[in-house]
Amino acid sequence: MQVHDFESGAALARLRVDGQRLWNSLMQLAQIGATEKGGVCRLALTELDRIARDWFVAWAKEIGCTVRVDAIGNIFARRAGLRDDLPPVMTGSHIDTQPTGGKFDGNYGVLAGLEVLRTLADANITTLAPLEVAVWTNEEGSRFVPVMMGSGVFAGAFTLDHALDQRDRDGVSVRDALAAIGYIGENIKPHTVAAYFEAHIEQGPVLEAHDKTIGIVQGALGQRWYDVTVHGMEAHAGPTPMELRRDALLVAADVIHAVNRIALDHAPHGRGTVGWLDVHPNSRNVIPGRVKLTVDLRAADDATLTAMDSALRALCEAAGKQAGIEVAIEPVVYFPPQPFASDLVAAVKQGADMLGLSSMDVISGAGHDAVYLARVAPAAMIFVPCKDGISHNEIEDARAEHLEAGCNVLLQAMLKAAQTVRPIAVAEDESV
Amino acid sequence: MQVHDFESGAALARLRVDGQRLWNSLMQLAQIGATEKGGVCRLALTELDRIARDWFVAWAKEIGCTVRVDAIGNIFARRAGLRDDLPPVMTGSHIDTQPTGGKFDGNYGVLAGLEVLRTLADANITTLAPLEVAVWTNEEGSRFVPVMMGSGVFAGAFTLDHALDQRDRDGVSVRDALAAIGYIGENIKPHTVAAYFEAHIEQGPVLEAHDKTIGIVQGALGQRWYDVTVHGMEAHAGPTPMELRRDALLVAADVIHAVNRIALDHAPHGRGTVGWLDVHPNSRNVIPGRVKLTVDLRAADDATLTAMDSALRALCEAAGKQAGIEVAIEPVVYFPPQPFASDLVAAVKQGADMLGLSSMDVISGAGHDAVYLARVAPAAMIFVPCKDGISHNEIEDARAEHLEAGCNVLLQAMLKAAQTVRPIAVAEDESV
Repeated sequence: MQVHDFESGAALARLRVDGQRLWNSLMQLAQIGATEKGGVCRLALTELDRIARDWFVAWAKEIGCTVRVDAIGNIFARRAGLRDDLPPVMTGSHIDTQPTGGKFDGNYGVLAGLEVLRTLADANITTLAPLEVAVWTNEEGSRFVPVMMGSGVFAGAFTLDHALDQRDRDGVSVRDALAAIGYIGENIKPHTVAAYFEAHIEQGPVLEAHDKTIGIVQGALGQRWYDVTVHGMEAHAGPTPMELRRDALLVAADVIHAVNRIALDHAPHGRGTVGWLDVHPNSRNVIPGRVKLTVDLRAADDATLTAMDSALRALCEAAGKQAGIEVAIEPVVYFPPQPFASDLVAAVKQGADMLGLSSMDVISGAGHDAVYLARVAPAAMIFVPCKDGISHNEIEDARAEHLEAGCNVLLQAMLKAAQTVRPIAVAEDESV
Repeated sequence: MQVHDFESGAALARLRVDGQRLWNSLMQLAQIGATEKGGVCRLALTELDRIARDWFVAWAKEIGCTVRVDAIGNIFARRAGLRDDLPPVMTGSHIDTQPTGGKFDGNYGVLAGLEVLRTLADANITTLAPLEVAVWTNEEGSRFVPVMMGSGVFAGAFTLDHALDQRDRDGVSVRDALAAIGYIGENIKPHTVAAYFEAHIEQGPVLEAHDKTIGIVQGALGQRWYDVTVHGMEAHAGPTPMELRRDALLVAADVIHAVNRIALDHAPHGRGTVGWLDVHPNSRNVIPGRVKLTVDLRAADDATLTAMDSALRALCEAAGKQAGIEVAIEPVVYFPPQPFASDLVAAVKQGADMLGLSSMDVISGAGHDAVYLARVAPAAMIFVPCKDGISHNEIEDARAEHLEAGCNVLLQAMLKAAQTVRPIAVAEDESV
């Protein structure tokens, strides 16, 4: 086995992944749960998930990895380092999908990690620190909530028991579903991670709009979700003059505009969406008596998110007061903004530059396993474009050259991180 | 039998209906299809409708009326006049209800007409022209469309065969339903009507807001209904920056505001309502890709309604253009504005004044059988307040004193009309 000279990076800098092998693996995995429209339906902890997990485990073992499974079913494929006592440099993502999901969401991050390990195996290179590829359980949350379940347990966002007790619509618990597919491991305590990278399709239109290959992800937006109820007065559209109405939908339209204005007022990263709306009684010639709607506010920092929250409350109150109507706001979810580790973000940028790839700084608007991992380890993400920004859809698509480029950046960033890992005092203490 | 001296109105002016008997009849009829919440569910041409019709027919025959049924099931209870060859002065309404309807909508107009005939029978008064009380088939349209079916056929708004061919959700035709309850008559040709009055609860809040007992109905608003579809682009709420969105719900909010503004710009009678709205895919963290909504515009005259139509089209186009989104508008219904006959409206006003009742000019925002009758005969309506303006609801309510007052106005207006009826040349010709 060749022991790389970590003082000179020239040989490593020339190393490239096999883009065709990566693509082939993506297409192979996409056959498990393939849909007629070209997508994938592979819900978490189903028999299809088991088959896909088994394939991943077999592929990892083929290149000499050891494989462990923790108590929430997360899989860790480990490639030993020269200093195998060091905490690992990790990458990963998920292989569960939405019911009408695509081939790339999550699967790309897992198989890009596998391709990095395969490339190193082919080149007979051993890194200083060990490398690991994680397959996180139930990221999508389509069958079981909460979403990002495996990484959430790993990062301590919620307890293992809380996750194991969740049930799907048929009443099957996570605990029983994990046991049924044989992926309930014994490791309860998360291990220390030196650095975590995650490659992912962007799931948005920014890279494509700017014609860039690599998104250098600076962090993830914080999110505040709300349920809003507008209480008007149901009445006949015909006999009720305008001045005697208490039209709940008219006030809901004010709220929709307010949410949009709040986001625009907090550019560039402020986002505001009313995605769900329900009108009662929803009849053509009846003035709506009650409208329920959801609000989703996102921002890159907590001060902005708090300002947006205040603006929403003030605008809803003003709209209701003007119309003589009650507008009730109930917060339902809060995810804090999560900046990524600056040295890891820089490593991603250096990798892209070194490879001559066009790139731009972006921020993740959606949640990812990396966002939970960032709570317990230095973390960063690499985005590649997806066609028309479409994801969570069977027509989700991405270009092989972009996927290969992102995988090469992942390789370089992991190599850089792996050669600078130092023993972590806290980690050593914890292992005693 | 006393023959009234029509040259002196003094005796007739002192005549009053029996408010308690009217109320009792309303409460009796409301037992047929009574709901637990105090409302009535008596859909058109059901067995419950048959029972209610049978009661009405029996009550009419008790006071010596002759009863005819026409080919669409309209019932005409006729009290002979001194000149029984003259066309009748008619009143009426309907006794079918909404699925969660009230006790007064329609039923009041029919039983107020019956109470007028009972009062004349008690006083042994015979009018110059005959009087008729009509029970129009399927005004509500809850089981069969079109609404106002019986009066629509009578007025030639659509053909008898078109109406008879309509089917309910179970596939039962109007023809079969009429036959099943024994109310399919042989009269196909509508008879000439000298004048038509209809008493009705207002179904709106105007009289109550102005503390008036009688609404002198000047006519009915014209209506234009539309289906609007906003075609945006479905995308993830998180990864999609505000400037790259094509949010269909945001443009729909513009349309909702535009509809309201158009109505306010055409005061006092302009009305605009978005009562129904459907969001696709209607998911909390997905930017809406498509919104469908209905628009209901109403105005007292056609020039105004046309101006509102133009404004709607212009504002929808502008909203869509600004957002780079297609907004499609499809007209679905047009009811022209229908002014009532000025001499009949004046007779209603004189009746209210003579009885010392507070009154105000109003316009009917909703459709009524009288609106169709106005196409073939001089017509007018009398509104009385209903509690909080609520109708088409099991909690629909009205005060006995108001119902009695409206019935007394109906009595006086019918008496006045009946003594001035002249042979109608056209009617004579038609009968040849």
